Amino acid sequence: MSDEKIETTSKDDAETEETRPSRRSFLKGTGAAIGGGAVIATGMIGCGDETTAGGPAETTGAAGGGGGGEAAGGGGGHAASSVAPGELDAYYGFWSGGQSGEVRVMGVPSMRELKRIPVFNRDAATGWGATNWSKDLLKGRASGDTHHVHLSYTDGTYDGRYAFVNDKASARLARIRLDTFECDAIVDIPNSFGTHGIFPQRNATGLVFCNSEFRSPLPGTNADPQDPSTYSALHSAIDGESMEVKWQVMVEGNMDLCASDYEGKYSFACSYNLEGGVTLPEMMANDQDCLYVFNTEAINAAIAAGDGTMTLGESQVPVIDARGDDGPFVLRIPIPKSPHGVNISPDGKYAMCSGKLSPTVSVVQIDKIAAAFAGDIEPRACVVAEPEVGLGPLHTAFDGRGNAYTSIFIDSVVTKWNIDKAIEAFGGAEGVDPIVQKIDVHYQIGHINASMSETKDCDGKWLVALCKFSKDRFLPVGLLHPENDQLIDISGEEMVLVHDGPTFSEPHDAVIVTKDKINAVAIDTRDHPRYELFNRWAEEDGIDLQVDNRVVRRGDNEVRVYITSQAPDFKLTEFNVKQGDEVTIILSNTDNVEDLSHGFCVTNHDVNFLVNAQGTESHTFTADKAGMFWYYCPWFCHALHLEMRGRMFVEAR
Amino acid sequence: MSDEKIETTSKDDAETEETRPSRRSFLKGTGAAIGGGAVIATGMIGCGDETTAGGPAETTGAAGGGGGGEAAGGGGGHAASSVAPGELDAYYGFWSGGQSGEVRVMGVPSMRELKRIPVFNRDAATGWGATNWSKDLLKGRASGDTHHVHLSYTDGTYDGRYAFVNDKASARLARIRLDTFECDAIVDIPNSFGTHGIFPQRNATGLVFCNSEFRSPLPGTNADPQDPSTYSALHSAIDGESMEVKWQVMVEGNMDLCASDYEGKYSFACSYNLEGGVTLPEMMANDQDCLYVFNTEAINAAIAAGDGTMTLGESQVPVIDARGDDGPFVLRIPIPKSPHGVNISPDGKYAMCSGKLSPTVSVVQIDKIAAAFAGDIEPRACVVAEPEVGLGPLHTAFDGRGNAYTSIFIDSVVTKWNIDKAIEAFGGAEGVDPIVQKIDVHYQIGHINASMSETKDCDGKWLVALCKFSKDRFLPVGLLHPENDQLIDISGEEMVLVHDGPTFSEPHDAVIVTKDKINAVAIDTRDHPRYELFNRWAEEDGIDLQVDNRVVRRGDNEVRVYITSQAPDFKLTEFNVKQGDEVTIILSNTDNVEDLSHGFCVTNHDVNFLVNAQGTESHTFTADKAGMFWYYCPWFCHALHLEMRGRMFVEAR
Ligand SMILES: [Cu+2]
Ligand SMILES: [Cu+2]
Repeated sequence: MSDEKIETTSKDDAETEETRPSRRSFLKGTGAAIGGGAVIATGMIGCGDETTAGGPAETTGAAGGGGGGEAAGGGGGHAASSVAPGELDAYYGFWSGGQSGEVRVMGVPSMRELKRIPVFNRDAATGWGATNWSKDLLKGRASGDTHHVHLSYTDGTYDGRYAFVNDKASARLARIRLDTFECDAIVDIPNSFGTHGIFPQRNATGLVFCNSEFRSPLPGTNADPQDPSTYSALHSAIDGESMEVKWQVMVEGNMDLCASDYEGKYSFACSYNLEGGVTLPEMMANDQDCLYVFNTEAINAAIAAGDGTMTLGESQVPVIDARGDDGPFVLRIPIPKSPHGVNISPDGKYAMCSGKLSPTVSVVQIDKIAAAFAGDIEPRACVVAEPEVGLGPLHTAFDGRGNAYTSIFIDSVVTKWNIDKAIEAFGGAEGVDPIVQKIDVHYQIGHINASMSETKDCDGKWLVALCKFSKDRFLPVGLLHPENDQLIDISGEEMVLVHDGPTFSEPHDAVIVTKDKINAVAIDTRDHPRYELFNRWAEEDGIDLQVDNRVVRRGDNEVRVYITSQAPDFKLTEFNVKQGDEVTIILSNTDNVEDLSHGFCVTNHDVNFLVNAQGTESHTFTADKAGMFWYYCPWFCHALHLEMRGRMFVEAR
Repeated sequence: MSDEKIETTSKDDAETEETRPSRRSFLKGTGAAIGGGAVIATGMIGCGDETTAGGPAETTGAAGGGGGGEAAGGGGGHAASSVAPGELDAYYGFWSGGQSGEVRVMGVPSMRELKRIPVFNRDAATGWGATNWSKDLLKGRASGDTHHVHLSYTDGTYDGRYAFVNDKASARLARIRLDTFECDAIVDIPNSFGTHGIFPQRNATGLVFCNSEFRSPLPGTNADPQDPSTYSALHSAIDGESMEVKWQVMVEGNMDLCASDYEGKYSFACSYNLEGGVTLPEMMANDQDCLYVFNTEAINAAIAAGDGTMTLGESQVPVIDARGDDGPFVLRIPIPKSPHGVNISPDGKYAMCSGKLSPTVSVVQIDKIAAAFAGDIEPRACVVAEPEVGLGPLHTAFDGRGNAYTSIFIDSVVTKWNIDKAIEAFGGAEGVDPIVQKIDVHYQIGHINASMSETKDCDGKWLVALCKFSKDRFLPVGLLHPENDQLIDISGEEMVLVHDGPTFSEPHDAVIVTKDKINAVAIDTRDHPRYELFNRWAEEDGIDLQVDNRVVRRGDNEVRVYITSQAPDFKLTEFNVKQGDEVTIILSNTDNVEDLSHGFCVTNHDVNFLVNAQGTESHTFTADKAGMFWYYCPWFCHALHLEMRGRMFVEAR
C-alpha cells in the first residue's frame, strides 16, 4: 500500500481516471474471487492482490463519463449539474447520515449540503441532545446508525409531511417534520435488534415497516441464547401519525432491506441468512435465501381481531408468530444467495431483489403474489426475470422509462438494464440482451437512487451513486477519507457522470425529491411537541414566555430563568443564583425575521443552544462554581452580536 | 414576513439576483440606521423596515458578478470554480465550525466539504467524545464555539504541521495534526473568559496568542464582581509544541481579534470596549477604542527573568499586569469606535484594523511601532491611512498585488481597495481614490479570507466571503437556514462571484492553503497520544494489541476486551461478561489498506466508535442488561460487512 499511497498523493490534478488503470484492475481482481464461487476471500476491498485474472467483462463508460461531464455540458467539468450563484436547485435530496446519526438535506443537482438535521446524535450548534426536550427524547443516548430515509406518501407520491429514518444501533425509528425540518418523534421498537430496512406505505400516510436484521433470542419464545436455531426476528409496523408500534410479525430469518408496494397490500423484506448462522461461513452456507412478503391486510385483520397474537416480554405490542412455513401472513419467495436490496418499480409492477453474492437481480411480479399466497402457484413462480448485471449487485433505481439502474459493489459500476427485455430473455427469447450500459463509479457503490424513483412521479433526470470509497478522487485528508456521492445524468440515452461529491461518514441511502413537494416554513410554528413542556412550566410560574424576563425559584435548589431576546439584546442582562442550583434557562426569541436565530451560551459551563425566530428552547445545568460568568449569544445575529451578553452571578453556598 | 416567505419559496429557479431588488434595499435600508450615527437600532438585520432612504452609494458588481460566473468561465454557472469528476482541488480550506465545535476541511475552488474533524463536539460517527482518550480530553464537555482556525508557520508561511482552533465558550485552544487530520491536544486557558481571537507566530512554530474577550473579575486582583471597573482581561501565549500556557498579560480592556507580525516581535488585539461597559450602550459610549500591541520580546524577557510577574488564583501561569498606561509590554494605538478585525498584509508592513461602527479601515505601519514603544512618536502616529470602505467593515484579506479586500457587514459587500493609494490619500494627495471595486455578497458577510492571504506566499487567486445570512439563495430548509460561503475569483482585475456555498452553522473564519503545503498520511502512525493509554493497558495485561483477542477480567467488575478486526471479520465473535461489569472494548484494526476503517457498535448500548486502518481505539460502557447483544461493524468495509458481527453474552448477576 505504501507505493499506492505515494502515487495517490503526488499525482497531477489534470490526470484523468483513464490514465490510472492500476486502481481499477486492482479492484476488479479482488472482485474476481467472489465471482468464482464458494470461497469468500477476506480483505475483498484492496487487499493488495493485483491479479486481473478472471475479472468480469470490461465495463463501458459513457462518452466523457469517466473524465467529467464535458460531453453533456459543453462548458466546465460539471456543467450539467452547475447551479449558478443565486439560482436554486430543482430537487431536495434527503440523505441518511450513517454513523453520524443525523439526516442531511442536499440540493440536487448542485450536490450542496443545505442542512444537517440532528436526530440520534448530539449537535453542539443547536444544542440537540442537551436541551431538555431533546435530551428526554434521546434518553441519554448520543449515537445512532442511520441507514434509510424515506418520506411519507399519499397516493403513490411524496406528500411533503414527514421523513422517517432508522437507527440500526438502538432499534429506533425517528420522524422529521418537513415544514420546520426538525425531528419531532423517536420511537423504540421493542425486541428488535439491528433495525435496518424501513419503508412507509405508499398509498397513504399509514404504517412504516421496519425490519430487524439481527436474529436474537426473543423473550417469551423459549429461546436459548446459546442456541442460534431458537433465534428469531421481527417485522414491525409503526403508525406514521401517532408513531406507535402497532404490530410485529415474527419470522425465523434475518431481514435486511424493506419496501412497500403502491397499493397498501404488501411489505417486503430480503433475508440474506435463512441458514440462521451466527458466523460468516454459517451465514453463507446455502445457495438460496428468500424475499419475505408480508400480507398487510391479513395481518391488520388478525391484529384487529386479536386472533392468535402474543406479546413478548415487557412489550405490549401484539405479535404474530409466523415462523416456519408460508401461511396467510408471510410468503417466502426463493432468491439466489444472500439478497440485500429490494426496490419496487414506479409502475408498481415489480420488486427487484439483488443478491449480493449472486450476479443477478430477481424480478418479482407483484400481481402474482396473491396467487402464491392462495397456493395456486409456487412462490418462485412470481420471479419473471433474473438478468445478470455484474458482481455484487445491491440496489436498484428507476427512470420511469422502463429502465432499471442497479448498483454493483464489487465491479464498482452502475448497470442500466431494460426491464421488459429482461423479462423477455428470462422467458426464453433468443438474442435479447437487457443490459443497456455500464458506467464506472468511484468506488464500491452501496445505495443508489434516482430523482423521484420511489414514486409514481419517477422522472428519470438524476441518479446518485453513493460510493463507499473515494480513494484518489479528492485531496487526501488523513486517516478517514470521505465517501463519494457521484451524480449521474440519466436524462439522455447514456448515463453521464457529472459530479464527484465528498461526504462525511457515511450516508447509506438517499432520496431525491422535486422541490415543489416540500413546503418549508421559516418562522417557528410553536407546535413542536416541546411546547407542551414549556407551556406547562410557564403556567406553573405565571409567565408569558414571549414577554417576561424573570428568575423563578422553585424549592431549595431549582431555579427557572425566563429570558427573551431580540437582536442585539437579551432582555435580562444579569441574574443571581446560588451555588449548586439546578438552573433551567428558558429562552424565547422574540425576533420575527426568518433565520434571525439567537443562542444562549454560558461560559465555562458547557451550555450552548439555539433558538430560532419566534421559538423557545430550554437547557438545564448545575451552577456548581461560585463567581460571575458571562453568558452570550453565539449567533451572528447583528453587527453588535459580540455585545449581546449578560452576567450570571453565582453566590457561594 | 409572511409575504416575504411566500415570494421566496415560489420564485422561479432562473430568476436572477438583479430581478429581486426588494431584498437588497431591505437590507440597505436597515443598514442606513447605523451609518447615520449614534443611535443603534435593534433588529438591524431585516427588522422589516423597507425604507431605502439614506442608504450608501449603490455598489458596483463585476460583470456577471451578481448572476454567476458565466463571464469568467464561458460555460456553466460556476465554470471558474468547477472541478471535474476525478480531478483534485488546488487548495485546502480549513474552516472553523462555529457552534458545531468542529473544524471542516474544504476543497477550493470546488467548495466541497472533504472532512469534518470533531474537536469540541461529540461526533457519533467516529466516537469522538465517547472513546476513552477523547472523553478524558473533553472532560465531559460536549459543546464548543470555534471561531478562528490558523495553521502553524515557519518563516512566514504554512509549515503543514498543525492547525489551531479556539473555543470561545469554555476558553480552550485545540490543536489538530495535519498528517492524520486528528485533534491531538486541547488546553484550558486559565482565568480567560470568552477566548476569541487567536493567532500563531509566523516566524516559526512558537507561541499561539489567544485573546480573552470578556473582561471579568479575576482572582488575585481584588476585583469586585459587582463593579465592572475592576474587571480585566488576559492576552495568553501558548507554546504550539507543548501546548502549555507560557504566560499571560493582563490589560484593562476586552480583546477581540488577534494577529501576529511576520518577525516574531509583536502580537495584536483589537479592543472594542475600552469603556469597560457591561451593557450595550455602555460599550459604545466612546468614539475611540484601541489596537493593543504586545511586545513579545519584552514580555518573554520579563517572564524569563521572573521580574514583576504574578499568578492568578489557582493558576501557576506567570502573569504580567499591564493594565493602564503604555509601558514596555503593551502599546495602545487609538482606533475609531469599536474595532473588530485586525489583519497583517502579506509583506508584513501593515496591520489593518476595521472599526465595525466606523466606515473606515485604520492602517497601522508596523515598523513605526518600535518608535512608539520608545516614546519617540505618539501611538496614533503609527496610523498611516484610514480609507472609508463602507458600513460595518470587519475583516481584511489580501492578494499580494497591493490590494486589500475588506468585508462590509451592513452593506453586504466586499470592498477592494489599494493600500498604497490609501496611504497617499491619507497623506493629503488630491484626487486619489483607493477604492477599486465593491461587489455584492449575499448577505451580511462576517469573515473574509483569500488564498494564502495570511502568508508571505499570498497568491491572489480565490477569496471566500463567509456570509451569515443566505436568505433566498438556496431552497428553503425550515427554521434554521444555511450560511452562505461565497467564492470570488480575484485573479483578474475585477472580482467575480463564482459560487454560492451553503454551510451548516456557523463557520466564523477560514484559511485557504495551497495543497503542496499539506502532507496527509492515510495509515495510522500510532503516535497519537492515545497510544500511551493503550500501550499501558496492553503491558498490564500481557497483550499484543495487533494479535491478541482475549477477555481480561480486572477485579470484581472491570473487564477489558481486546479484539482485532480484519474485513469482514472480528477475530473475537463472542465473549462473556457479567451484568454490571464496566466493559472496555479495545479494538485494533489490522487491515493495512487506506480508508479501510472498521467500527464497533454494541446494539442497544449507545456504543459506537471508529478505528482506522492499523489503529486502535477504546470505549468503556456498563453492561447493565442481562442477555445476548449483537455487536457489529457499522462501516461498509466489505461486500459482507453486514455479516461482520459477534455476540456479547451478559450473565445476570
Ligand atoms: Cu443574538
Ligand atoms: Cu468492518
